[in-house]
Amino acid sequence: MIVLFTDFGLEGPYTGQVKAVLYQTAPGVPIIDLLSDAPAGSPKPAAYLLAAYGAWFPPGTVLLAVIDPGVGSARAPVIVEAGGRWYVGPDNGLFELVMRRAVTPQTWEILWRPEALSASFHGRDLFAPVAARLALGEPPSKIARPTEIGRRADWPDDLPEIAYIDRYGNAITALRAASLPKDARLDVRRRALSRVRTFSDAPPGEAFWYENSNGLVEIAVNAGRATEVLGLMIGDPVAIIV
Amino acid sequence: MIVLFTDFGLEGPYTGQVKAVLYQTAPGVPIIDLLSDAPAGSPKPAAYLLAAYGAWFPPGTVLLAVIDPGVGSARAPVIVEAGGRWYVGPDNGLFELVMRRAVTPQTWEILWRPEALSASFHGRDLFAPVAARLALGEPPSKIARPTEIGRRADWPDDLPEIAYIDRYGNAITALRAASLPKDARLDVRRRALSRVRTFSDAPPGEAFWYENSNGLVEIAVNAGRATEVLGLMIGDPVAIIV
Amino acid sequence: MIVLFTDFGLEGPYTGQVKAVLYQTAPGVPIIDLLSDAPAGSPKPAAYLLAAYGAWFPPGTVLLAVIDPGVGSARAPVIVEAGGRWYVGPDNGLFELVMRRAVTPQTWEILWRPEALSASFHGRDLFAPVAARLALGEPPSKIARPTEIGRRADWPDDLPEIAYIDRYGNAITALRAASLPKDARLDVRRRALSRVRTFSDAPPGEAFWYENSNGLVEIAVNAGRATEVLGLMIGDPVAIIV
Repeated sequence: MIVLFTDFGLEGPYTGQVKAVLYQTAPGVPIIDLLSDAPAGSPKPAAYLLAAYGAWFPPGTVLLAVIDPGVGSARAPVIVEAGGRWYVGPDNGLFELVMRRAVTPQTWEILWRPEALSASFHGRDLFAPVAARLALGEPPSKIARPTEIGRRADWPDDLPEIAYIDRYGNAITALRAASLPKDARLDVRRRALSRVRTFSDAPPGEAFWYENSNGLVEIAVNAGRATEVLGLMIGDPVAIIV
Repeated sequence: MIVLFTDFGLEGPYTGQVKAVLYQTAPGVPIIDLLSDAPAGSPKPAAYLLAAYGAWFPPGTVLLAVIDPGVGSARAPVIVEAGGRWYVGPDNGLFELVMRRAVTPQTWEILWRPEALSASFHGRDLFAPVAARLALGEPPSKIARPTEIGRRADWPDDLPEIAYIDRYGNAITALRAASLPKDARLDVRRRALSRVRTFSDAPPGEAFWYENSNGLVEIAVNAGRATEVLGLMIGDPVAIIV
Repeated sequence: MIVLFTDFGLEGPYTGQVKAVLYQTAPGVPIIDLLSDAPAGSPKPAAYLLAAYGAWFPPGTVLLAVIDPGVGSARAPVIVEAGGRWYVGPDNGLFELVMRRAVTPQTWEILWRPEALSASFHGRDLFAPVAARLALGEPPSKIARPTEIGRRADWPDDLPEIAYIDRYGNAITALRAASLPKDARLDVRRRALSRVRTFSDAPPGEAFWYENSNGLVEIAVNAGRATEVLGLMIGDPVAIIV
């Protein structure tokens, strides 16, 4: 299984071209769109989302992760093996949390280059062919060399920010619920939010936080849109009240 | 064939996780995104859309239908067999019209539970595995028990409301065209709209109604956006002038 | 491989029904969403996008291209063979540039009709079954007759307009970069833009143009949204300063 985690969108021309490469190189391998609307060009919050959502997939999964504002510059293309999963994408911090949460992550720099490499679409030209070959069982040694990749020691283990807003208007943070005391409250836009188990446990219209189905702290409103009720945006800070 | 009918959206993390479950449980079964932007959390208009659009699919199709504002509460997970098609989702009225329009619909409550059941994402954890198993030909008796499900006797056979707005700005109602006199006019926002066969039969810029390709009354403007020309929103009432 | 190029959107009910037809008629043939948000009802700019993006796919690909504001009127349904690729869709100019750039394009009018042909959704009822049969290797002679199709001699070889805006806020023109002098500047909204190789070669916040990964002139801003920085919209003219 190849899983796409990008800021490419689905309706425009980018994801389709990536999938065309994958289908041609690895026929019959299922392709999943996990996230295609990651905040454009922001590898840091995306790194926390990737660690939380990627971990849900079974070992052997290849995650093609491309949030790549530096495409065409000197940043290296890399492969990361962590927790039995393969990650392919740019060396820009996107894999920091995946690596930090793995016991013995391994990393490679991709040396292989396609005959035609565009300056702006390595997702299609470089990362997709590599992901397809890994999905076919090819070892990374054939296309890459083991190397250290750039680390982000200053990034926290959990990021107290809103990293994603879903179509219900729920605000997903980059905090794992397991990193908070069970009865912690959250301070968001000067509102103190308590924890509930799920939507139906809160009165309609009331804002709360809960552990979402991938383990992250999520801010929501029962029968309403948290983004509108609380005026939330991506990047807003979230403080833990203990 | 497994058909998804949800309010999950495609670009965010929900539909991808559902498909990952389906691909793993029922490899090789095609998965179709029929509707992923149903009005969030509104089973009533969705029930009319599901009945109209689901009926287009061949017998044997499994429709995974999840508009589920009560996820995590006491509402039951159910299977409905109607017209030779299987429907899987929450017992919240979503299947009312599908059942009403079938000769001998059959209904089951799903008893099977996964090892890990999140509080907020039964689409992934409960409904998707059940849909996959039905698509593989497994009988519902292995995972569910026959039971009556909740009916909505007070819901009309056709709902005179705008249930969906498409990307062209056309307004799809929850009325079947066959339920109206052939020459009926519609009163929408104090405008009387006549029926035409299709777009090119109306002068550019003129609003009209027509029977759309799935049998519903749809309000449109030739070479324009009905939502803007008429100021339409989901939920707006539509009156039949006979 | 069947490639979809439409203004149908992905989340609504249109693309899913098209795919259901394709999967049933041509099981196992991969289906790619190349573009599903082409400007609604505008075949002219779409024709330039189709020529640029379609040419990236390998010979043998079937492109189902439906931007069809005249659906239900007298415009003919056609098949075009150009550069070894098959194109299926309405005869409304959409294939003009594909044909002009091919050595010996061949064209057919589709004579086959389905048992049930809706007035408004030929993408599902007529074009999809034809595309699926071509993808299976069926010759067009079984369903169509050779004929001339409508040409647009007055359309230029390259169109100096913004034809598409992507989710990063980049503005893709209908001009091939190869049609411009290498050091040409562009006049867009009274701003003169210079050419760079790719995003990282421009200072953050600065607007530029570059040759995108499918050969078109694209207007962008490093670490910003060109549409907002420059106030760009689809249809805006672009002048070449030489």
